Amino acid sequence: MKPVRLGMVGGGSGAFIGAVHRIAARMDGRFDLVAGALSSDPDRAAQSAAELGIRSYSDFTQMAEAEAARDDGVEAVSVVTPNHMHAAPAIAFLNAGIHVICDKPLAATAEQAAQMAQAVRAGKARFFLTHNYSAMPMVREARAMVAEGALGDIRLVQAEYLQGWLADQTSNKQADWRTDPKQAGAGAIGDIGTHAWQLAAFVTGQTPDTLSADLSSMVPGRAVDDDARIALRYGSGAKGGIWVSQVAVGQENGLSLRLFGTKGALEWRLRHPEELIYTPKDEAPRILTRAQDRSASSRTPPGHPEGYLEGFANLYSDIAAVIRGDRSVEDRIPGIQDGLSGMAFIAACQNSAQQDGAWVKVQI
Amino acid sequence: MKPVRLGMVGGGSGAFIGAVHRIAARMDGRFDLVAGALSSDPDRAAQSAAELGIRSYSDFTQMAEAEAARDDGVEAVSVVTPNHMHAAPAIAFLNAGIHVICDKPLAATAEQAAQMAQAVRAGKARFFLTHNYSAMPMVREARAMVAEGALGDIRLVQAEYLQGWLADQTSNKQADWRTDPKQAGAGAIGDIGTHAWQLAAFVTGQTPDTLSADLSSMVPGRAVDDDARIALRYGSGAKGGIWVSQVAVGQENGLSLRLFGTKGALEWRLRHPEELIYTPKDEAPRILTRAQDRSASSRTPPGHPEGYLEGFANLYSDIAAVIRGDRSVEDRIPGIQDGLSGMAFIAACQNSAQQDGAWVKVQI
Amino acid sequence: MKPVRLGMVGGGSGAFIGAVHRIAARMDGRFDLVAGALSSDPDRAAQSAAELGIRSYSDFTQMAEAEAARDDGVEAVSVVTPNHMHAAPAIAFLNAGIHVICDKPLAATAEQAAQMAQAVRAGKARFFLTHNYSAMPMVREARAMVAEGALGDIRLVQAEYLQGWLADQTSNKQADWRTDPKQAGAGAIGDIGTHAWQLAAFVTGQTPDTLSADLSSMVPGRAVDDDARIALRYGSGAKGGIWVSQVAVGQENGLSLRLFGTKGALEWRLRHPEELIYTPKDEAPRILTRAQDRSASSRTPPGHPEGYLEGFANLYSDIAAVIRGDRSVEDRIPGIQDGLSGMAFIAACQNSAQQDGAWVKVQI
Amino acid sequence: MKPVRLGMVGGGSGAFIGAVHRIAARMDGRFDLVAGALSSDPDRAAQSAAELGIRSYSDFTQMAEAEAARDDGVEAVSVVTPNHMHAAPAIAFLNAGIHVICDKPLAATAEQAAQMAQAVRAGKARFFLTHNYSAMPMVREARAMVAEGALGDIRLVQAEYLQGWLADQTSNKQADWRTDPKQAGAGAIGDIGTHAWQLAAFVTGQTPDTLSADLSSMVPGRAVDDDARIALRYGSGAKGGIWVSQVAVGQENGLSLRLFGTKGALEWRLRHPEELIYTPKDEAPRILTRAQDRSASSRTPPGHPEGYLEGFANLYSDIAAVIRGDRSVEDRIPGIQDGLSGMAFIAACQNSAQQDGAWVKVQI
Repeated sequence: MKPVRLGMVGGGSGAFIGAVHRIAARMDGRFDLVAGALSSDPDRAAQSAAELGIRSYSDFTQMAEAEAARDDGVEAVSVVTPNHMHAAPAIAFLNAGIHVICDKPLAATAEQAAQMAQAVRAGKARFFLTHNYSAMPMVREARAMVAEGALGDIRLVQAEYLQGWLADQTSNKQADWRTDPKQAGAGAIGDIGTHAWQLAAFVTGQTPDTLSADLSSMVPGRAVDDDARIALRYGSGAKGGIWVSQVAVGQENGLSLRLFGTKGALEWRLRHPEELIYTPKDEAPRILTRAQDRSASSRTPPGHPEGYLEGFANLYSDIAAVIRGDRSVEDRIPGIQDGLSGMAFIAACQNSAQQDGAWVKVQI
Repeated sequence: MKPVRLGMVGGGSGAFIGAVHRIAARMDGRFDLVAGALSSDPDRAAQSAAELGIRSYSDFTQMAEAEAARDDGVEAVSVVTPNHMHAAPAIAFLNAGIHVICDKPLAATAEQAAQMAQAVRAGKARFFLTHNYSAMPMVREARAMVAEGALGDIRLVQAEYLQGWLADQTSNKQADWRTDPKQAGAGAIGDIGTHAWQLAAFVTGQTPDTLSADLSSMVPGRAVDDDARIALRYGSGAKGGIWVSQVAVGQENGLSLRLFGTKGALEWRLRHPEELIYTPKDEAPRILTRAQDRSASSRTPPGHPEGYLEGFANLYSDIAAVIRGDRSVEDRIPGIQDGLSGMAFIAACQNSAQQDGAWVKVQI
Repeated sequence: MKPVRLGMVGGGSGAFIGAVHRIAARMDGRFDLVAGALSSDPDRAAQSAAELGIRSYSDFTQMAEAEAARDDGVEAVSVVTPNHMHAAPAIAFLNAGIHVICDKPLAATAEQAAQMAQAVRAGKARFFLTHNYSAMPMVREARAMVAEGALGDIRLVQAEYLQGWLADQTSNKQADWRTDPKQAGAGAIGDIGTHAWQLAAFVTGQTPDTLSADLSSMVPGRAVDDDARIALRYGSGAKGGIWVSQVAVGQENGLSLRLFGTKGALEWRLRHPEELIYTPKDEAPRILTRAQDRSASSRTPPGHPEGYLEGFANLYSDIAAVIRGDRSVEDRIPGIQDGLSGMAFIAACQNSAQQDGAWVKVQI
Repeated sequence: MKPVRLGMVGGGSGAFIGAVHRIAARMDGRFDLVAGALSSDPDRAAQSAAELGIRSYSDFTQMAEAEAARDDGVEAVSVVTPNHMHAAPAIAFLNAGIHVICDKPLAATAEQAAQMAQAVRAGKARFFLTHNYSAMPMVREARAMVAEGALGDIRLVQAEYLQGWLADQTSNKQADWRTDPKQAGAGAIGDIGTHAWQLAAFVTGQTPDTLSADLSSMVPGRAVDDDARIALRYGSGAKGGIWVSQVAVGQENGLSLRLFGTKGALEWRLRHPEELIYTPKDEAPRILTRAQDRSASSRTPPGHPEGYLEGFANLYSDIAAVIRGDRSVEDRIPGIQDGLSGMAFIAACQNSAQQDGAWVKVQI
């Protein structure tokens, strides 16, 4: 397969998620990064591009135009800016016929999200959302097991995403925009809550009808939520919960999912992502590994730990496949619907919290 | 120390918790079981007593009178009947001046609970409630750490108690009374929720002001709750959650407590009860064991696993000490206040659930 | 069942293992401790007996005679003295027709062991050896699984017993006799190595033909081994290893057993004794618990952790059953053969070590 | 930094380790793979090269000459052939002044190893050996801790590498050459034993003086060892053990290292490679993660699991740095000395085994 020519918006030197996207794109050799508007600061943009040896733009609008005009222009672009800066570049590239690989959450506001959805519907190019955790092998296996009925009817869904890095009023590049309501749109529920929400939906195949949320700002002076406890009700009768926190001292990146059905249970934790605990009803728990995974989404035999970057790379490699015409993996790549669902989740949480936890509809 | 002469109400052959109480009383040699009204069925009562080699009564009222009249009568009595049958015997023995060791929850109704509290206030004898998990060494150590400020101000409290044994409409001695609203008063929130509630209060030293509950009966036809998700708000500003379930397939007895404060975090799980994970802020997690426990409540060196029965026995041995005049351990033994708190928890959950999860006061 | 009248030799106040035996005897109510020669120091013996409320003897010879002469004399006696003081009392009681429950290892010397074996063969009374770990439920289940062929032919056997408490030249009651060659006969290989040896033999049903040992005394000035690495060869073609250490800093009581066969594998660790990891070939590992145990040797449902004391109590309760005539559990109680096997293990280790690790026969 | 132009010998389509090397080279963008002699089968070589879009050679001798002659020729070459085919290409490239990155073990015979060492000594180019596990962050942190004395004097070293994939007489590309004495030179001791040996040496900074080995071929008809139990004696007085197996059913890739010193202990397991358990003497164990790692050898914050491929990439990125002139990381990259040490380990094991486990010198 010929590598896909890739551009990037955001992700200048010092950025966390931009570097992750680059490794993910590179890992399986299916992308060549060739151009970027890596920073809104022209000097930093130029310097970062020089370090990477790619064409540099100081402006994504100009980049979209110029690249669309080149024979060897980028075929896809990764948008790795803060949340409030997803919509504009995504729309510009989509309109220019260039596929967009966008970091999550979709946007900072419902308006931005709606405009993005409209641009996607226009159909000039494809849109992908990097909910990377759902591309890890044992998560994919969990989804396959649920789909084939291994759990029976799902009764209970519990997702958690606990971090401790924002337990204080720390100030740094990563923390600052995430705790600014204008740039982020929401706090923990947007930054990590949407991951938990998407993970649960991806594996169970269900989205709650209504939710009740208690949002907190535990750190004095913080303008966004840093802890949230959300109760879920599904149309199927299942109940669930999402607990996210960025003040959970000692938790590095504690994402987990637990499901209980009429016939069995599943438990997955990011901390040990190669282990999926499956307990058939009235039997002993089994520790499934990639030896049992059927998604063919890993590079090494079981026992050779793959992790976060490999999961991210799985997404990128699937995206390359789709761009090159292989539709078989399309349904496991998150897209605009996942993005809109995440925005509806954020809105419902904020809506419920304003009504002191009343049950509200999730309006996707 | 001369062993305490003990009686028992309930706990005839085939009972689960009665046998546990007997082992707990026996383990450290501080009690002699000498009399019992072991069953409401006179034949079964007599036969069970004969097997144990103790004086038999078919009626607890008669037993209370007769034992109070004997020079070598029981000094304390264990009440191990279903919930709705705690109040009558407890009151009879308290009024007869015989100490009462009562299984949890306190009672099946608020009226029963109030009458018990009145009998305790009369002051003729002492009342103890067997919230056994709070007597396990690492739970006691957790409490001591919180009290001395190891966590700073507590922000987040999460207690879970997950079981799977009632995932179906099974019928047996244990299941039947627990799923009968008249005998049990409540479902999972009473049977295991009160344990989680007491555990969190015991370790944190705080009780929530208000709560919001979503109660479910997942098994068709079940008349009591079998799953509950409860959000908590503390006067201190802390937030919390309790999740209890008896339909969590594959969970044997999954009690756990997680606390996050401004300076550190603690995690304890019944599954590996000898390990208390303590994470000071910005440091590596530490696996504390009985080597670090300061409560002097174990029998063997660390590394010789002690568990459920030893925790139960810790409670019994402390009770014997108090009966024999040692007040030093009194404040770590659950009593009538814990019982009333548990009843208030149950009532608040049911009250909130009837208002579709409205935040309600916990009225202790 | 009428409780067995029990005596004790050794185990005065301050002793570790004597107290453990008493709890084990008491837990299921199948023994009444009624007499003891608890210390070679008459005052301490009398005081310890008074605390326990039992008949006191200052001399085990006298005790054996006197108790044998009483109608209500002890039916069995627990010998919980240091190793070099097992043989004399054991023989005295056996000859008096009183059953003996002896702590491990059997003796401090081969001569003592031979004399004990002779007294057992005389047949006046029974002899039991408290290799307690082999009475834990998941160990019994492991043995049953091996016996029924779940592992196929066993190829690899690895037992470890790692402790760190003797990493320094500490001096206390427990450490002193264990590091005195005259009282102990051997160091780590006797104190904990015999447990590992018996555990492996109990579960696999096999005993190695030959072994090669490297014994060390890591602490300067120590007169016995405190670390040993032993390679094993079985007649069946299986290979194995035993590693024991008492200088493994940080290890509290790290006993474990791993078995690999042609069809599956088993792993058990004392640290989490209720979990037995079973991996059928080419399948996912399963975490077996007491829910899967078929030995009926526990008191509570799975999920209510039982541990060291319960395992010890299992042994005592089986012994009571045998004494009362129930032969069905006899084959799972360690006895004189296990004791002689342990002595042969110690001798072979010392023999091999003297020849710089030459392979030597294990002469049972 | 300008990427290093890389070639590859071996690693045609279907190869396991060649693909791993390519991902490792690609991950951090420090290499460009531009040429290869990917297979001894010319058609397969050409096809594999075409898939990768690189210059193809059917013969490594020709490749070395041609590439050395080009201005844009490869600067380094990865040798990923079976063991017996390491020496010839490595020597050819070294002599042509092209750096060599060689898979382990160094060679199939001592003669080959000696010739390679001679070529390295000639000094025309550098030689690197991909003992990848020693480049994982927590292994590097372990080494730093030992070096700064966190463990005091090391007393006990235990390394294990257990796999189960050769438990049967399976035949496939990977299994076939590894069980052919001519191609592999040794069995488990070469394939995985050298990893364990290097890991222990890397972290402890010590190499045993003598060893005693028991080698087995558990699978009937197997011509190489598939299980080995090796005892170690260090000049410092430390003792150790290495246990490797490829018939340990259920073990996917069970590499682990445990160290016990006078002041503390360390435990690391590949299964959960981001956790390093550190137990200071008389304190609680601590779970160190990359939050505590000081080696700056990871890409993401702690809690974003990195694993096998990232460790391999660490090695490649360090190699690129050295090639580009940064000597600061040189001492943590395995090289010819590690290779010769591994060959001496294999030879000593085979030598000892031929003498039924006699202690033999490790002659590096």
